[in-house]
Amino acid sequence: MGDTNGRKRVVIENVAPNIDNGRFPIKRVVGEMVLVEADIFADGHDSIAAMLLYRGPDDKQWIESPMQFIENDRWQAEFIVEKIGMYSYTLTGWVDHFKSWQKALEKKFLAGQDIRVDILTGAAYIKGASQRASGKDAKRLSEITDFIKKKKDIDKIFSLSTSDELITLMDQYADRSFATTYEKELAVSVERNKALFSTWFEIFPRSCSSEPGRHGTFRDCEGILAGIAKMGFDVLYLTPIHPIGKTNRKGKNNTLVAEPGDVGSPWAIGSEEGGHKAVHPELGTMSDYERLVKKAREHGMEIALDLAFQCSPDHPYVKEHPEWFIWRPDGTVQFAENPPKKYEDIVPLYFETENWQEMWNELKSVVLFWIDKGIRIFRVDNPHTKPFAFWEWLIREVKSECPEVIFLSEAFTRPKVKYCLAKLGFTQSYTYFTWRNTKQELTMYMKELTQTDVREYFRPNFWPNTPDILPEHLQYGGRQAFMMRLVLAATLSSSYGIYGPTFMLYINEAVTEKEEYLNAEKYELKYWDWDQPGNLRDFITRVNKIRKENPCLQATRNLEFYETDNDHLLGYGKFTEDLSNVILVVVNLDAFHTQSGWLTIPIRKLGIEPGESYLVHDLLGDDKYIWQGERNYVELNPHISPAYIFSIKKRLRRETDFDYYM
Amino acid sequence: MGDTNGRKRVVIENVAPNIDNGRFPIKRVVGEMVLVEADIFADGHDSIAAMLLYRGPDDKQWIESPMQFIENDRWQAEFIVEKIGMYSYTLTGWVDHFKSWQKALEKKFLAGQDIRVDILTGAAYIKGASQRASGKDAKRLSEITDFIKKKKDIDKIFSLSTSDELITLMDQYADRSFATTYEKELAVSVERNKALFSTWFEIFPRSCSSEPGRHGTFRDCEGILAGIAKMGFDVLYLTPIHPIGKTNRKGKNNTLVAEPGDVGSPWAIGSEEGGHKAVHPELGTMSDYERLVKKAREHGMEIALDLAFQCSPDHPYVKEHPEWFIWRPDGTVQFAENPPKKYEDIVPLYFETENWQEMWNELKSVVLFWIDKGIRIFRVDNPHTKPFAFWEWLIREVKSECPEVIFLSEAFTRPKVKYCLAKLGFTQSYTYFTWRNTKQELTMYMKELTQTDVREYFRPNFWPNTPDILPEHLQYGGRQAFMMRLVLAATLSSSYGIYGPTFMLYINEAVTEKEEYLNAEKYELKYWDWDQPGNLRDFITRVNKIRKENPCLQATRNLEFYETDNDHLLGYGKFTEDLSNVILVVVNLDAFHTQSGWLTIPIRKLGIEPGESYLVHDLLGDDKYIWQGERNYVELNPHISPAYIFSIKKRLRRETDFDYYM
Repeated sequence: MGDTNGRKRVVIENVAPNIDNGRFPIKRVVGEMVLVEADIFADGHDSIAAMLLYRGPDDKQWIESPMQFIENDRWQAEFIVEKIGMYSYTLTGWVDHFKSWQKALEKKFLAGQDIRVDILTGAAYIKGASQRASGKDAKRLSEITDFIKKKKDIDKIFSLSTSDELITLMDQYADRSFATTYEKELAVSVERNKALFSTWFEIFPRSCSSEPGRHGTFRDCEGILAGIAKMGFDVLYLTPIHPIGKTNRKGKNNTLVAEPGDVGSPWAIGSEEGGHKAVHPELGTMSDYERLVKKAREHGMEIALDLAFQCSPDHPYVKEHPEWFIWRPDGTVQFAENPPKKYEDIVPLYFETENWQEMWNELKSVVLFWIDKGIRIFRVDNPHTKPFAFWEWLIREVKSECPEVIFLSEAFTRPKVKYCLAKLGFTQSYTYFTWRNTKQELTMYMKELTQTDVREYFRPNFWPNTPDILPEHLQYGGRQAFMMRLVLAATLSSSYGIYGPTFMLYINEAVTEKEEYLNAEKYELKYWDWDQPGNLRDFITRVNKIRKENPCLQATRNLEFYETDNDHLLGYGKFTEDLSNVILVVVNLDAFHTQSGWLTIPIRKLGIEPGESYLVHDLLGDDKYIWQGERNYVELNPHISPAYIFSIKKRLRRETDFDYYM
Repeated sequence: MGDTNGRKRVVIENVAPNIDNGRFPIKRVVGEMVLVEADIFADGHDSIAAMLLYRGPDDKQWIESPMQFIENDRWQAEFIVEKIGMYSYTLTGWVDHFKSWQKALEKKFLAGQDIRVDILTGAAYIKGASQRASGKDAKRLSEITDFIKKKKDIDKIFSLSTSDELITLMDQYADRSFATTYEKELAVSVERNKALFSTWFEIFPRSCSSEPGRHGTFRDCEGILAGIAKMGFDVLYLTPIHPIGKTNRKGKNNTLVAEPGDVGSPWAIGSEEGGHKAVHPELGTMSDYERLVKKAREHGMEIALDLAFQCSPDHPYVKEHPEWFIWRPDGTVQFAENPPKKYEDIVPLYFETENWQEMWNELKSVVLFWIDKGIRIFRVDNPHTKPFAFWEWLIREVKSECPEVIFLSEAFTRPKVKYCLAKLGFTQSYTYFTWRNTKQELTMYMKELTQTDVREYFRPNFWPNTPDILPEHLQYGGRQAFMMRLVLAATLSSSYGIYGPTFMLYINEAVTEKEEYLNAEKYELKYWDWDQPGNLRDFITRVNKIRKENPCLQATRNLEFYETDNDHLLGYGKFTEDLSNVILVVVNLDAFHTQSGWLTIPIRKLGIEPGESYLVHDLLGDDKYIWQGERNYVELNPHISPAYIFSIKKRLRRETDFDYYM
């Protein structure tokens, strides 16, 4: 038996949340709650008690929160995370002999049995507590012990034994000699609010020139900051800003040979002008960039840097660290390929190199370099083509120096790979939203993201389009389809982003039978007239304003779907825990035709009785309706509006009919 | 980074089966299969390979079984357990550069690209394998390397590079330098077949006398062995055989004061005549008992001993080890109570005693004592009122000395407690079957037992009645209800048992408004006329014969439910993996009325085409039917038979119509 303590009788099992048995932390942002549940039980019929223990990054000691029994041996407790950094939590439970005794005493007393011996047993428990206590609590517990021992007034002893005062004191000085502590300390990675609620706008800085044909610069970007901020975006993501390789540079439309003047893909990083720590000379100087980062902050926006750990054949690394690349038997460097496709302008890093540690450190220094320039958000290109262990290490290392850094994973890959990257530390991730269109597809996907363990570690960032993806429904659905997808992205997920100017102008010309842009900006200089008639600036501004003004839209896990009797109408809602903010969204998924139907709303949950009427205010169209009951009629003409974003409020009683709570 | 090996690129996650992250073993019996699945993937697009590693109790080294890719990064492999004892398994996976190369080569070659440099890359992989190989394999791999390097006949090189011969060799000598091995070794507790397939008959030995009024003896029990064995039972479970206490002995019908001649509850163990290592003198001597154990074996049955770790106030332990009991402030020993109910004839052991180690060792010596007397099956009374840690230790200790021991847990308690006892080592367990009556109740409960993780560690033993429980449906449903519940118990679960003579005689007199027997055998001497007219001997014999002759009924996890359009008709089936044995059961859950309806059978799964007819043979009534298609009509009059137990066989084609496969 060794030193096994056979007297620990409580079992703690099935603790949730708990990602891969504590292998990975769950995620929260500052101010969010962690609700912890577990199966906790002992042999026999004794009462038990349990405590949630947690501590924040600066806490030396556990903070305790008493667990409450729910049902079927399940217990729960919660805590709020208040600081950025790593929290820990675990559980402890013990057999509570005092409580068992109290319960038995009550039953015996009420059954009229003699309790004169029983009360002495209780007195011993209370005496034990007095010895664990100090000061006035110890004194009071002693007094109670003595009073009971005198066995004078059984009725009084009984009511004292079951008094709130004694319960509180006994809980405080409970006998935990044989407490069982859960075998693991589980972790919560707490990040700043933007990890959960962020609104992204993507641009190619070279296309931001104010004159057609001229290569845009960081200074040009400064000029458009105000307009983007006014639309309600808080992250401005610039495609890579580094020198672009010349060897095997791609021409327009991804052709193999670039023509003179072709600018190449910004993801073919590195030339004799520098690599991942340099800026492309045509965009400006490093200090121009630093100035842009600062100006963006003044507009309430952060610049996100594209972290693409790959090289053009001209990258300085290729000469300085040939061992970081794969060399073919003919002495040439191995470029990227997905046979039979070839990507001649890019050479991947060789992560199985013997010098992997040196390479990892260099890549970490790239991240720290840009942190030093003011960057706190990194959009990571194709993280799924670099080892998982590398990312886990890199993110941990970087966060230990700069805890507020946010990493967005651009892992357009298989689900388990995508989720693994999220588990090991990426703050947010791109998703399959881009290809989820029907009611069933959207519902199933959102349930996976919000109603399974995934919600504990995977924060979606919804993108209707990207420079690489022009999905089929945007190719054919016209302006209405862009509006519909924007509403979905912006209200289903608390983080979303658009590939900016092309989205505002609903550019939809695609390569034949592909979901790719024709004349893609990736391979050429563009000039966008953002104010072209029909542009979506006002619509986007309104949607982002609604997001900003309604806290319930600033979370994703609080999503609920509501039934509609028309498969083209998707109904869902979000609300804050105190019900002070309730949003109900109905989207017409058909970009071509008017759709109508009946929507069922769980009004009781919102505190509205079936016979009561309530006000719904469409924040998108600014129309107000009075509804009653669970089922209400909705009709949406996509050529007028793709959706309703209703704010629901209980009507004031005993006030005029047209007032309602603010 | 320390010594982290950054070059291990494969991730192994979500391994199943896996009970509480490897905290507990899964369970199997000799000859059963373990199917292991896991999510296995690497970064990027490289091919990977994975291996299941397992070893039995006598294996010094891992045995390897290659894993197969299923879908969505899920892989699987299996192994058969062949010996009693503890097996281990784990997984390993690696990036297979040779396979990646081979796949790319194929695509490039078929696309007409130049592969003259690529083949040299492959040659290097093959050379590497030749260095890991020895003997003729090394020679052959060298030859292939040389042949490729000559670059003479590209077509021949291509077909050699993708040949089965090379694939087999390269798999055998794969480069596992950077393989990831799963962090845990998971365990399989392998037991003998009776752990899974057993048929129990419970008796009070004192009631087995051949004359009314005389106290039965072990010799009397010998006399009934043949009859019980003939009915098809293989475990004969005797209620406790130890001396019964006299202090506070209970009278008939659980009255507080015993009258002269009252025999008391056999669970009030211990008197001046001895404790847990003694036999009740009125039953005979220890050698009588040993003889009974031996005689039972001769009839193909094992005697199960009741292990009830509790004492009467007269038990020798109370004087010898007062510290193993709770003493009240008035100096009396604490008897068992569930306030306001009191069990004055029993004192519980105090598991929080400081001398717990000494007490544990004594209790272990009790088990070993009876093992020495020939006992290999223990029915453990109320294990849920003793600490979990105790049972885990006791079962491990006992099995290390005698691996074939079987423990049946009589944990009629809350689900999580019951499952916890199963996880920590109990072979079988009593269940809630006793109170699951309707189609929905039975279906939901069986799905929990056979389609969730529970099936990996919890082996149900179904009891329609016990000396403590006469469920309501047996009180009112008459003989038919007993027959119906027997068929359910015997065909839903591979282990079942009956509280014997009362079941054979469908005794159904209960205490008013309770599910307890009136004039319970627990408190008095009984004489049962087993051959009373109408007894169920023949029916029980037939059901047990069907179980013995049909291997598919000797497992529980293989259960499937089939739709019926009548809620009183429960349809389900079991079959062996090779479909050589297929049983379909239809039970009329209404003990009072004839019920009929349409049953839907998944005939395609059984290899029968919709247009084909097939033979169904009711093994219970011995009637044969020819059915066709998925839906067939069934009708059951409970006064004739409570159920059909159909054996389904494909009809012989090209043979006479009335022959069918045996």
